[in-house]
Amino acid sequence: MSNKIGNKVTVSIFGQSHSEAIGCTIEGLGAGFRPDFNRIQADLDRRRGGKNRYSTKRSESDTPEIISGIVGGYTCGAPLCAIFPNSDTKSGDYANLRDIPRPGHADYTAYVKTEGYNDIRGGGEYSGRLTLPLCFAGSLIKQILEEKGIYIGAHIASVGIIQDTLYDPVCVSRQDLEANPFPTLDQDAGVAMEEYMTAIAEEGDSVGGIIECAAIGLPAGLGSPMFEGIESEIAKIVFGIPAIKGIEFGAGFEVSNMRGSENNDPFEYQCGKVVTTTNNAGGILGGITNGMPLIFRCAVKPTPSIAKEQDSVSLSGGVKAKLIINGRHDPCIVPRAVPVIEAACAIAIINQF
Amino acid sequence: MSNKIGNKVTVSIFGQSHSEAIGCTIEGLGAGFRPDFNRIQADLDRRRGGKNRYSTKRSESDTPEIISGIVGGYTCGAPLCAIFPNSDTKSGDYANLRDIPRPGHADYTAYVKTEGYNDIRGGGEYSGRLTLPLCFAGSLIKQILEEKGIYIGAHIASVGIIQDTLYDPVCVSRQDLEANPFPTLDQDAGVAMEEYMTAIAEEGDSVGGIIECAAIGLPAGLGSPMFEGIESEIAKIVFGIPAIKGIEFGAGFEVSNMRGSENNDPFEYQCGKVVTTTNNAGGILGGITNGMPLIFRCAVKPTPSIAKEQDSVSLSGGVKAKLIINGRHDPCIVPRAVPVIEAACAIAIINQF
Amino acid sequence: MSNKIGNKVTVSIFGQSHSEAIGCTIEGLGAGFRPDFNRIQADLDRRRGGKNRYSTKRSESDTPEIISGIVGGYTCGAPLCAIFPNSDTKSGDYANLRDIPRPGHADYTAYVKTEGYNDIRGGGEYSGRLTLPLCFAGSLIKQILEEKGIYIGAHIASVGIIQDTLYDPVCVSRQDLEANPFPTLDQDAGVAMEEYMTAIAEEGDSVGGIIECAAIGLPAGLGSPMFEGIESEIAKIVFGIPAIKGIEFGAGFEVSNMRGSENNDPFEYQCGKVVTTTNNAGGILGGITNGMPLIFRCAVKPTPSIAKEQDSVSLSGGVKAKLIINGRHDPCIVPRAVPVIEAACAIAIINQF
Amino acid sequence: MSNKIGNKVTVSIFGQSHSEAIGCTIEGLGAGFRPDFNRIQADLDRRRGGKNRYSTKRSESDTPEIISGIVGGYTCGAPLCAIFPNSDTKSGDYANLRDIPRPGHADYTAYVKTEGYNDIRGGGEYSGRLTLPLCFAGSLIKQILEEKGIYIGAHIASVGIIQDTLYDPVCVSRQDLEANPFPTLDQDAGVAMEEYMTAIAEEGDSVGGIIECAAIGLPAGLGSPMFEGIESEIAKIVFGIPAIKGIEFGAGFEVSNMRGSENNDPFEYQCGKVVTTTNNAGGILGGITNGMPLIFRCAVKPTPSIAKEQDSVSLSGGVKAKLIINGRHDPCIVPRAVPVIEAACAIAIINQF
Repeated sequence: MSNKIGNKVTVSIFGQSHSEAIGCTIEGLGAGFRPDFNRIQADLDRRRGGKNRYSTKRSESDTPEIISGIVGGYTCGAPLCAIFPNSDTKSGDYANLRDIPRPGHADYTAYVKTEGYNDIRGGGEYSGRLTLPLCFAGSLIKQILEEKGIYIGAHIASVGIIQDTLYDPVCVSRQDLEANPFPTLDQDAGVAMEEYMTAIAEEGDSVGGIIECAAIGLPAGLGSPMFEGIESEIAKIVFGIPAIKGIEFGAGFEVSNMRGSENNDPFEYQCGKVVTTTNNAGGILGGITNGMPLIFRCAVKPTPSIAKEQDSVSLSGGVKAKLIINGRHDPCIVPRAVPVIEAACAIAIINQF
Repeated sequence: MSNKIGNKVTVSIFGQSHSEAIGCTIEGLGAGFRPDFNRIQADLDRRRGGKNRYSTKRSESDTPEIISGIVGGYTCGAPLCAIFPNSDTKSGDYANLRDIPRPGHADYTAYVKTEGYNDIRGGGEYSGRLTLPLCFAGSLIKQILEEKGIYIGAHIASVGIIQDTLYDPVCVSRQDLEANPFPTLDQDAGVAMEEYMTAIAEEGDSVGGIIECAAIGLPAGLGSPMFEGIESEIAKIVFGIPAIKGIEFGAGFEVSNMRGSENNDPFEYQCGKVVTTTNNAGGILGGITNGMPLIFRCAVKPTPSIAKEQDSVSLSGGVKAKLIINGRHDPCIVPRAVPVIEAACAIAIINQF
Repeated sequence: MSNKIGNKVTVSIFGQSHSEAIGCTIEGLGAGFRPDFNRIQADLDRRRGGKNRYSTKRSESDTPEIISGIVGGYTCGAPLCAIFPNSDTKSGDYANLRDIPRPGHADYTAYVKTEGYNDIRGGGEYSGRLTLPLCFAGSLIKQILEEKGIYIGAHIASVGIIQDTLYDPVCVSRQDLEANPFPTLDQDAGVAMEEYMTAIAEEGDSVGGIIECAAIGLPAGLGSPMFEGIESEIAKIVFGIPAIKGIEFGAGFEVSNMRGSENNDPFEYQCGKVVTTTNNAGGILGGITNGMPLIFRCAVKPTPSIAKEQDSVSLSGGVKAKLIINGRHDPCIVPRAVPVIEAACAIAIINQF
Repeated sequence: MSNKIGNKVTVSIFGQSHSEAIGCTIEGLGAGFRPDFNRIQADLDRRRGGKNRYSTKRSESDTPEIISGIVGGYTCGAPLCAIFPNSDTKSGDYANLRDIPRPGHADYTAYVKTEGYNDIRGGGEYSGRLTLPLCFAGSLIKQILEEKGIYIGAHIASVGIIQDTLYDPVCVSRQDLEANPFPTLDQDAGVAMEEYMTAIAEEGDSVGGIIECAAIGLPAGLGSPMFEGIESEIAKIVFGIPAIKGIEFGAGFEVSNMRGSENNDPFEYQCGKVVTTTNNAGGILGGITNGMPLIFRCAVKPTPSIAKEQDSVSLSGGVKAKLIINGRHDPCIVPRAVPVIEAACAIAIINQF
């Protein structure tokens, strides 16, 4: 098992939903970089939610304590460790879940893997809360990438049937990547999504969605063929985020119904630089960046914790059992996952330098 | 960069399309296993193609030479190295590609990465031929997994608009996984695909498709949360295969339009064993197997080498250029990729033990 | 760079001497193990020193706060993170060292590596204080190894010219490995060492020594040839401990003046088990344990921080400079390093299972 | 287990003494480097021996076949695979060793590890022949390092009681590092060693020795604290070489009897550069190079294969047994190990860039 990702800049995550704290250690940042912690907090706040009908009511401040690695505001070359205390935990809510696993959750698989010793409180290490330190690390790394002229952003491509417009794969701009209060490109779509999620919350149900992420300003030539290609590196991290069930780059699954003559992106010179006139490749050829925008989308499953009664089993009794889940849960985690997907992308990219 | 995958059973691949040979080294197989090389050859022949209108005319025998690791038919604990000589190479075909990169290929990105020192012959290390040793390793590993009661198979889910039926996610059987001469579940769909590919070949074009893969007999509890979860491990290897642009597990991208109440797979006891009555999770919860069939699909782009004239650039001249590609190329690599996807799955799974 | 060791049970260390805290994350411990924290504290106290003339006066309690990974006293399968706050820091003592590097310390090399951004306070991440979380991890792991019948111990083989008796390489016993208040086998030697160190402390100087470590109860067959052999694995960790300048296994450097007929350990059956009648190999043949006691010794250099005036340079001025070091420093770290060496051995061994 | 070393430039070794071939794959060399294969062959010939009374009579040409990674004489960015066929094997010599393990060899430990499936022929993967591809890789890498102004050399410090002079740790020169026909600094010592080894060969015995290695031209600031410090990286590889039982850096084990005031290397400016006036640190402080010569010594045990009758056991019978070893064996492998130690050093250093 590994809670660590990366081989040049590594991020190791620790903690459980209701342990004393969660956190991460980032190694390989180098010395002499001065992170803007206000901007990091802004990303953590994007992930936090908590102000509306469709987000969890958990109310920790989600502010990191820097344990090591920063001296006088600058990285000092030593691993940067940041922790987030888990202050607002109601562990009593979860007691009966040890016996009756929640459908769609890791309760059962964690139980089997650990022979029952897993931390069931709040989902333990399988909790979405573990994306908080991931988001922290990615946000910091995005700042380092910006110094190299690389910008990363993401938006909600869809929630259920409600769709946002997609990035223009050839000419997505820095402005397109900037974070909106509700992360859609089309504000009307955003309003529709919020209404939709609120309605679903009222039904006691949840819904999934798709997030689209782009990185621009990448030089051509980053990455490598085979198992450490850009797609592999991004996919590996993105699937480490709970609830992700699919990822596609560029034209993605659409390529299955395209001809080579359509899908191949023609090369052209523009301002003395080699570009492609379309971008079905999503900026990646042979696992290596070609200098065009890097674009991928990923599928987020509906939050498994719903208010409706569900069919499960009693592991102690070896019989069927009905399950009602109490507690605080988002009907749709897609909006909160947006900065986490950006973080995954940032971590993958910085490891290509 | 890394041509190596795995951390318990590792597979390292080397070679270029037209180097003296290609091959792989497999470490961690343990001692005392007796591979059935006839069955491996059968998988290599599935990958080889070469007997029809829509497959490349390259005619090496694709038979491995075992350099090390086998004594008296049994693994001896030392790394198993196998090589495949590159006997049928026509390097002259590729001379002009160094100047005019092929759209959809890695010619340009490899050029940038290596400052022009890349091996352009036959696509160099970016060639689909590198999937031959991957297929070899995966085939051998499938045999080891079978000793644990785990069976892996794949089929063509679609080529262009022609679709095969999909695996029943709850009760896919060993028989479903067995290799057919043309790898579809529905033979009529297979016939239609062959006709379709032949027609596209005659147009000088190519087409993409989707491959579906399943593994059955997996115990619950394999894998781990976060970055070495089953999805991460499979995705990382699958994206190492040239031409893959997307992967999805279980219901995949469909989850984006599902309610939690639909997508959550209810638990049930069957013959004293915990199962789920649906399998939208594709057999994976929290990165860990739940004992249900593991199912994923991946998108294969159309072969970029097509006979039609294409727009590209002359890197030496810094100007636009037209490109006509000669040489041997498949109009659709989907059929040949089927055992390679199985191989990727096998390598990912054996590393969970 | 890497502050992480191991590939099955990994230990990642973070912190600087004067950062908010130092700590470690241990991954791969498995679930369901109940550490005895009193015994761990006893090892940390052995490392701590602080009660005599020849140890540093720093007085933190060196008691871990468990951040994650333990639920109800048992490991839960998630990474175990433990931190040790740095409460007793006097950072002012170190201000001038940024300009005038201490001979024998990492001040200069850290300065070059980080272009001056390194944390100079208390030696930063180069401080011996970083061995505290290493000792914690190793102590916990020793308990897991004891459940497998494996026992690890170490003693001071020499301090300057004062020598302890060495372990009997063939029949070192559990009792020999038990920790003494002063860690020598021969109590008289211990008394002589204490007097010697006190005398050297009074001179304002320091002295080095040798530590011998043994592990018994190891099954034959652990390890592997080449780069992950037992010697490689132990040496890699031991050299991660500041001040270690040499390591030797079994007869060690003595083999250079031995004949094969002397050095080869003859095999014999004893109680139905294959043993060797001598143990010049230190329990390792071909990188693999042979079931005999594993024995190694390592050389610890004299503490570089001494009270005597030393020759150094002023980096800002580009000229010679005299240096007087104030602050708290051990004249000999050998006694305190004993449990740290045991920890290194334990981490290396558990990664062989 | 791992036959792979390095994380930036990796070397993976495969093969057994009597398999079809042995070889290595080198990844991460980058593209556009033109190796001088004549110089590599010269290093392989230094390792080969074969022309005198005290070296094995095995007579393969030890010339690499380049399988991949080189195009037109230049590295192309793909992994470089080189193999060495095993042509001169007399496997019959080793048949009875499966039952009666050779003292000092890995026969017994390999037997236990593989449950008897190990390749016993010629020592299998535990054979010194596996240092041939290591030497190849290291020799090539030395050339890359020379382009950075870094030179590596080694010599025999002692064989039995016969000692060579040691490198001057402060001012070892390029000339000192150049390979002599017999690798000593003092030619008279070399003559004495040759006579001594010949005499020991005539007794049917063997003898060990010490090799000293130095690297000059290293910039200050390479390496890192803790587990990937320079000492850790070198030691890990050096202990991967069969027969090494100890390693020490700089003053090494002597530090145990030194005062801090003696051992600390004073800093000084020389030609505007920070140097130390002594070099007890062996060029390494805190795991990081300080710009002074990097110096280490390692202990080589006497060849375990001797002509004298030895005590062993019959594993099948479970009883004592006498063993007479026939076949070709060096009475002292120290001279042949010299370029292998240089190779280990080169691989460790290139991974610091």
